[in-house]
Amino acid sequence: MLVSIRRVLIGRPIATARAVQERLDKWMALPIFASDAVSSTAYATEEILIALLLAGTAALSASLPIALGIVFLLVVVTFSYQQTVLAYPSGGGAYLVAKENLGIRWATIAGAALLIGYVVTVSVSVAAGVAAITSAFAALRPYAVSLGVLFILLLMLANLRGLREAGFAFALPSYSFMLAMFLTIGWGLARLVIGGAPPAPAPTAASEVSVTGLVWVFFLLRAYASGCTALTGVEAISNGVQAFKPPEGPNAAITMRWMGAIMAAIFLGVTYLAHAYHILPDAGAGGHGAGETVISKIAETVWGGRGVPYYFVQGTTMLILILAANTSFAGFPRLAAILAQDRFLPRQFWNVGDRLVYSNGIVALAVLSSLLLVVFQGNVHGMLPFYAVGVFLSFTISQAGMVRRWHRLRTPGWRRSATINGVGMTTTFVVMAILAVTRFMPPDSNVLFHLPFTLPGLGDTVRSGAWLVVLAIAGLQLLFARINRHYVAVASQLTLIGYQPPPAPKNTVIVLVPSVNRGTVPALQYAKSLGQDTRALHIEMDPETTPRLLREWEAFSQGIPLLVLESPYRSLIDPLFRYLDEVQTEREHIVTVILPEFVPSRWWHVLLHNQSGWLLKLALLGRKDVIVTNMRYHLKE
Amino acid sequence: MLVSIRRVLIGRPIATARAVQERLDKWMALPIFASDAVSSTAYATEEILIALLLAGTAALSASLPIALGIVFLLVVVTFSYQQTVLAYPSGGGAYLVAKENLGIRWATIAGAALLIGYVVTVSVSVAAGVAAITSAFAALRPYAVSLGVLFILLLMLANLRGLREAGFAFALPSYSFMLAMFLTIGWGLARLVIGGAPPAPAPTAASEVSVTGLVWVFFLLRAYASGCTALTGVEAISNGVQAFKPPEGPNAAITMRWMGAIMAAIFLGVTYLAHAYHILPDAGAGGHGAGETVISKIAETVWGGRGVPYYFVQGTTMLILILAANTSFAGFPRLAAILAQDRFLPRQFWNVGDRLVYSNGIVALAVLSSLLLVVFQGNVHGMLPFYAVGVFLSFTISQAGMVRRWHRLRTPGWRRSATINGVGMTTTFVVMAILAVTRFMPPDSNVLFHLPFTLPGLGDTVRSGAWLVVLAIAGLQLLFARINRHYVAVASQLTLIGYQPPPAPKNTVIVLVPSVNRGTVPALQYAKSLGQDTRALHIEMDPETTPRLLREWEAFSQGIPLLVLESPYRSLIDPLFRYLDEVQTEREHIVTVILPEFVPSRWWHVLLHNQSGWLLKLALLGRKDVIVTNMRYHLKE
Repeated sequence: MLVSIRRVLIGRPIATARAVQERLDKWMALPIFASDAVSSTAYATEEILIALLLAGTAALSASLPIALGIVFLLVVVTFSYQQTVLAYPSGGGAYLVAKENLGIRWATIAGAALLIGYVVTVSVSVAAGVAAITSAFAALRPYAVSLGVLFILLLMLANLRGLREAGFAFALPSYSFMLAMFLTIGWGLARLVIGGAPPAPAPTAASEVSVTGLVWVFFLLRAYASGCTALTGVEAISNGVQAFKPPEGPNAAITMRWMGAIMAAIFLGVTYLAHAYHILPDAGAGGHGAGETVISKIAETVWGGRGVPYYFVQGTTMLILILAANTSFAGFPRLAAILAQDRFLPRQFWNVGDRLVYSNGIVALAVLSSLLLVVFQGNVHGMLPFYAVGVFLSFTISQAGMVRRWHRLRTPGWRRSATINGVGMTTTFVVMAILAVTRFMPPDSNVLFHLPFTLPGLGDTVRSGAWLVVLAIAGLQLLFARINRHYVAVASQLTLIGYQPPPAPKNTVIVLVPSVNRGTVPALQYAKSLGQDTRALHIEMDPETTPRLLREWEAFSQGIPLLVLESPYRSLIDPLFRYLDEVQTEREHIVTVILPEFVPSRWWHVLLHNQSGWLLKLALLGRKDVIVTNMRYHLKE
Repeated sequence: MLVSIRRVLIGRPIATARAVQERLDKWMALPIFASDAVSSTAYATEEILIALLLAGTAALSASLPIALGIVFLLVVVTFSYQQTVLAYPSGGGAYLVAKENLGIRWATIAGAALLIGYVVTVSVSVAAGVAAITSAFAALRPYAVSLGVLFILLLMLANLRGLREAGFAFALPSYSFMLAMFLTIGWGLARLVIGGAPPAPAPTAASEVSVTGLVWVFFLLRAYASGCTALTGVEAISNGVQAFKPPEGPNAAITMRWMGAIMAAIFLGVTYLAHAYHILPDAGAGGHGAGETVISKIAETVWGGRGVPYYFVQGTTMLILILAANTSFAGFPRLAAILAQDRFLPRQFWNVGDRLVYSNGIVALAVLSSLLLVVFQGNVHGMLPFYAVGVFLSFTISQAGMVRRWHRLRTPGWRRSATINGVGMTTTFVVMAILAVTRFMPPDSNVLFHLPFTLPGLGDTVRSGAWLVVLAIAGLQLLFARINRHYVAVASQLTLIGYQPPPAPKNTVIVLVPSVNRGTVPALQYAKSLGQDTRALHIEMDPETTPRLLREWEAFSQGIPLLVLESPYRSLIDPLFRYLDEVQTEREHIVTVILPEFVPSRWWHVLLHNQSGWLLKLALLGRKDVIVTNMRYHLKE
């Protein structure tokens, strides 16, 4: 029955030979791999505004130059990664690039950062997707976390079914979101041209920029760093080049450029509209006590209320965010499989499931991201700093690897390529530094930065800082090292190099005979047929039954000598082990213990028989050089 | 560690040879086997009063003649059972007597009634013991049920340790209770003689006897039946004759007479004092909303308040009641063992534990009685009708068996003996009939007896009637029958009578080889040494690794041919089963499947390896004529 439930949910097995057919063309790969990056535009603008709002509403006008700075970063990273994709057509994730060019140390650091990034991507995207729903339907807010977990489970199922079928379901919503955003931005701009900008709200004391000088610079940097969450997901394509139809590299590179252009346009458009229409962010949208998202406010303003266009924007935003999580469901299992192959993660992650997907990785990701979602109670703003540092760390390592590669290979045009990647590396490193400095601790802890003021209202919505990621990456390094050490130790103990098989050890066959019956006689025949030194052993639980046993033995012994062991304390295991000690005096002397047991025809009959067979087996499992053989006699009724 | 906790709680194992030493002399047997019967006096008087109170306070004066009637019954039953004990010195419980004289049908009915009786005895006694505490300390009433369960668990532990040690702890409290009751009764009578009887309360309208004629007879019978709970436990000695020192029969008979006399004295004394001092029962003593017990009220009145004597009475009452439950802890496992030996209960009840006790029976009793206690929320009055019918049913069957026996054997003096047992049988049958008629349904349900009035206040304290026991006994009959059928079927399938061992079947040895390494080579050597038709099987999960496997095979094959099976859907089980189908075309063709597996040195290492070995084993377990042999290779690190 379990098997048939599984079939309905996950589908029939797919043959190994069909593996190569499960590839994607550009138009199908774009919605799958770009959904993460593009969907970041749904919350990146909001992050900038929240960071700036701390300095007063007037500070919000800094959002436009900050957005331009982030788009510049996006262009640099896109160009930089395009080279990676072309250089590594079989998949050029940060882990592989670092491993080939910088050594395994940096590779595992990048790997750890990426794994964490994938998990957080799922949690953040799903939480933001739920926020899009709860912005439109406030009544659903109490169920935000449960809804999120439900979506994660649905994603898991979809991915366990296999990539192609999932891909098809993903194309439409991603393209619909792009359409919705372009229409909203276009109509928003058109209204500005036709009707002019709406008047700015009258400045109040509270709206004044309250900080100046270096603190103002710190605020700007912090807002910039917050907005950089827009870039999360850009690397997705480089990890998944293998999934593209051949020629993988060029196809992936072109898709990457499309994606960068679409992202930049939407991000700039949304940020401009938020500025032009004087949109203020609510604290902590996405959590249980969530307010309305910036996108929701923009859509409501541009389309003049909550009509069909508004719900179209909210719906497609929700869909692309939920589906953005799918990027991780493609990336995480793939990376985990590579790490497992390199002996840094349990090898189960390397197993390919029924449907040609890395099932264990998919399930692990679903469990971890659900956990994170529950712990953070779906608060997007709270989760974002949790992984920004990790993402930029992997960006930097990946590009540093590329720079090293060009210097090593010196292929034609390597200087130009090295320069591009060098600029990418430097830029992402600087951003990472800014992130680390400005978001290392949650602002409400104020441990590192004794800000000259308290943070009104927003403090409690930010639960953790980037320090957690640093700790997690360090922890994963330790775990990787221990797992690796174990696999290396196992391999060295199993290797055939320099192995001379020892002479075949002596084998004594012992049949345990609790009583003589039609079930034990076949066991005796079997033991006899093995042609070894064979003995039968009866452990005497009830001395009164022994004479009868001996009588029956004479008739059915099959020529095997019987030994009766006393057991004054009615224990099976103690006398047996003492006897085994006597037999196994030599090193490497094998004993085969044959346990006859009968198998009842109905499950509840098991309750009517002693379970001593199981206990014996369990006890014998721990003993070296003992081989346990079960002789099962199936009862008919 | 589990073993050492067990040692501390239950003690070191006791050798089988010590079995005969664990017998009891009369002075030790009396407190153990009489505690149940004697302790019934702690609630029997109360039951009579509660039943009479329904007809008004004036009806309470009927309690004395009713008590005399019950003592007459006690004398009859004691004499009757004394003959059983003498006739069956190796243990003459109702089950054995009925089996020998009336056939197995009546024996299993008696057995079922007795098993239920033992369970209810534990629940009732413990609940009444707790009521003695909560009468003295009202603050403990909310914890009544938890206290009861705790006492049951302590009893279980004491009994798992073995009878003798437990016996010693039981003698003192039982004798103390008898002392306390005799002192109280003596002092109570003395005060009546010296100071005269206290004046009766002025009669009110409510105190009038409100029923007349046949209904009044019904009330008297009902009160009589309720008081018969005093007799529960009288049969305990007959079930446990084996536990007496030789000569078992006479020793048990003498102990029985002592017990009867002590019970009669205490029961009459208590009932007389309750009458003379005008004690009224509270509704539902022993439950959560419990009031004070009659014994507590008598002690308080007689000793003039709550001084040391009062607490001595309550304390010893509590102790003997808690320890009365111990009778069942001696009887239930013994009866369950006999029923298991006769194949009516799972044979695990026949196992003798480490400490020479039937451990499984002890644990089963503790679990069942705790459950009952919790379901009834410790309400003594509610539980009593639940088993009175069962107890008297087993009395009747037992004595009927004795009558049959005398008529069969016709030993000297058989007519006198048959008459005694005949009177016993008739009397207990009549009482059972009265019980069945008056307490078949709970009075508050009023389904059978449309009483001409409602039951003020007491209705809700009575939850069930004797019908539940009838149902339970019938259910147990069914269970016994099914279990018996299974054991008989198994025995007939295993019997050696008329058995000709078939010719030794053909055996093919198949070694599963996932890869060639230092762990698989010993498995190949082992397979080779069995000297049978031996093959190696590789199920191809990843075709890319096959060439390497074939190269390594050449060097380490041990001369065994290797077969590579394709598995297009990456399943281990499907190709293996298909291959086994091919091999096992003949009937009775055995296949030995050797599974090499390596055993990690640390438990968490298991998480780092595929669990496919376990899955295979599980799948192969269900297949006929397949013998699974595990070749375990122990890793050192």
